[in-house]
Amino acid sequence: MTISIRGYAAQSASTPLGPFQFERRDARADDVSIEILYCGVCHSDLHTARNDWGFTSYPVVPGHEIVGRVTAIGPEVTKFQVGDHVGVGCMVDSCLSCDACDDGEEQYCRHGLTQTYGSPDRIDGSMTHGGYSESITVKERFVLKIPAGLDLRGAAPLLCAGITTWSPLKHWQVGPGSKVAITGLGGLGHMGLKLAKALGAEVTLFTRSPGKEGDARRLGADAVVLSTDKAQMAAVSGRFDLIIDTVPYVHDLAPYVPTLARSGTIVLVGYLGPLEPAVNSVPLILGRKAIAGSVIGGIAETQEMLDFCGAHGIASDIEVIAMADIEAAYARMLKSDVKYRFVIDMATLKA
Amino acid sequence: MTISIRGYAAQSASTPLGPFQFERRDARADDVSIEILYCGVCHSDLHTARNDWGFTSYPVVPGHEIVGRVTAIGPEVTKFQVGDHVGVGCMVDSCLSCDACDDGEEQYCRHGLTQTYGSPDRIDGSMTHGGYSESITVKERFVLKIPAGLDLRGAAPLLCAGITTWSPLKHWQVGPGSKVAITGLGGLGHMGLKLAKALGAEVTLFTRSPGKEGDARRLGADAVVLSTDKAQMAAVSGRFDLIIDTVPYVHDLAPYVPTLARSGTIVLVGYLGPLEPAVNSVPLILGRKAIAGSVIGGIAETQEMLDFCGAHGIASDIEVIAMADIEAAYARMLKSDVKYRFVIDMATLKA
Repeated sequence: MTISIRGYAAQSASTPLGPFQFERRDARADDVSIEILYCGVCHSDLHTARNDWGFTSYPVVPGHEIVGRVTAIGPEVTKFQVGDHVGVGCMVDSCLSCDACDDGEEQYCRHGLTQTYGSPDRIDGSMTHGGYSESITVKERFVLKIPAGLDLRGAAPLLCAGITTWSPLKHWQVGPGSKVAITGLGGLGHMGLKLAKALGAEVTLFTRSPGKEGDARRLGADAVVLSTDKAQMAAVSGRFDLIIDTVPYVHDLAPYVPTLARSGTIVLVGYLGPLEPAVNSVPLILGRKAIAGSVIGGIAETQEMLDFCGAHGIASDIEVIAMADIEAAYARMLKSDVKYRFVIDMATLKA
Repeated sequence: MTISIRGYAAQSASTPLGPFQFERRDARADDVSIEILYCGVCHSDLHTARNDWGFTSYPVVPGHEIVGRVTAIGPEVTKFQVGDHVGVGCMVDSCLSCDACDDGEEQYCRHGLTQTYGSPDRIDGSMTHGGYSESITVKERFVLKIPAGLDLRGAAPLLCAGITTWSPLKHWQVGPGSKVAITGLGGLGHMGLKLAKALGAEVTLFTRSPGKEGDARRLGADAVVLSTDKAQMAAVSGRFDLIIDTVPYVHDLAPYVPTLARSGTIVLVGYLGPLEPAVNSVPLILGRKAIAGSVIGGIAETQEMLDFCGAHGIASDIEVIAMADIEAAYARMLKSDVKYRFVIDMATLKA
């Protein structure tokens, strides 16, 4: 049993996204069926639509920052009721039997997670389709509750941009007294500033572009350091316990390593590829410093982040767009012309 | 006031080490004067004698794995008495006022540690001279107690090779249930095997050379993996919480990263320089893995390590040499022809 719904899909790497009719499965025993209200627009959506990573299977319906309302539940579902406001992030299934899944870190599943779009379903093998659509059906374990009072539109980007910065903040135990820097002020970076500040850290923004001071401070930064200015960089030598590096393209880490405190870590969350120019071991060794990576977060951790955001009134700064404007939004994203995340109002799909 | 003593020094990068008469200061109020009995031979001694790092000040008396007997103490010394067996490692002073020193991590002193040889003394500016000599005078804070029962000759390499592997084992909280790998079986590597095993970890040796199985197992390895064998490497995929990489020359880290478990770390303790070929961020991000560095250990931690070795009967595997044979020992070290550390019997200097 399936239902036919409307969405927006890319049919090839070179064609613009457009209307697409496709099937969603009926709710399995442990499934939640969700009417999608809003969907954030992540850079991964664009990379996938354009096949920038080389493994896109077409047609693809992007979208993994999904907020909606429960319309039906399977008989084994216990955590959700029809009418609940819920979220779905970057993953909709995992093996659920490895040590990572047992530890609630499904994002590191040893057998590979099932992504919200572009992955084969673990049961029927059909390709998953994401949030640029009317509805989605997801295993209960991978559905999140949206806390009451949180703006549903601004909550959507929490499902990817939010958890991607929250997870390293928690893993590296950031709290009052911590000194954290965020590199790059985009969708991830602006959430990093908000979350680190709300966790009680002293927060600095590293940026290559002057003129971000006002916005950065409004978003939570205590200081803004121009990473191209040697004097400003020298002034923060040995300072940071954790640097969350959200820059999505290759860049030299050498200027940042000396700004780490003893035992500090730079965690990469934005750039996938070789670290060039080569990282030098000497400053790592002489300060017990580390270069690490991190990807999204586990389901329990994502719920924790959403609850924290509900309690602290934290949401993403967004610009709401209509579904039909997605290609214009992609073009603006490529110019970093968005403060700080596009969110699609899915009512515009039905209109 | 000074005393004139005998030692062995390099007078230039191109001359062999030879007898050298020089001055030691009388004990200051917080100093301990030590008759040197044994001194381990570290690769750093050779690098410094040959000016491989470009900053050697000649003449230089190497040696920072020192074991001896207290012959005099200053009036403020409280922890040591004449006749005590003591050790001195890689550092003899630090600022003692920064956060690192306050935390007992003098090795990461923000103002730079005073090395046992080749550093200017913080009080009188004279260059420090190391353990290839009859005696040494060291600030009490930087002198270690050698536990009763520990072989004095095998204890000497604990002051550098021992603490260099102990410190990361402790920092990354290795204990029963941990899975640790050691890369490279030399002076550092053989201590890494012994210490990790004694801490209760499951221990694997990575080596590029077949035929080390017997020795590795005797030293504490539960398994030996030939890092050039893809099948053997695949069999340990996702396995290790910590890899201590003791390899002293540039080498590709790519084969090792996949053998880390989720949230695992490769800590570099042997190689100083650019990480080439470039480390790729993808496997770091997809497993929350890290590349880190570490140098020796703090004084309190060194004492903890020595006490642990005393309690567990752990010492270095050594080959005792005469002072006059140092150049022959260096030549053999360059061929990795030592199991696993040369130790100079300083009585041979006086003969």
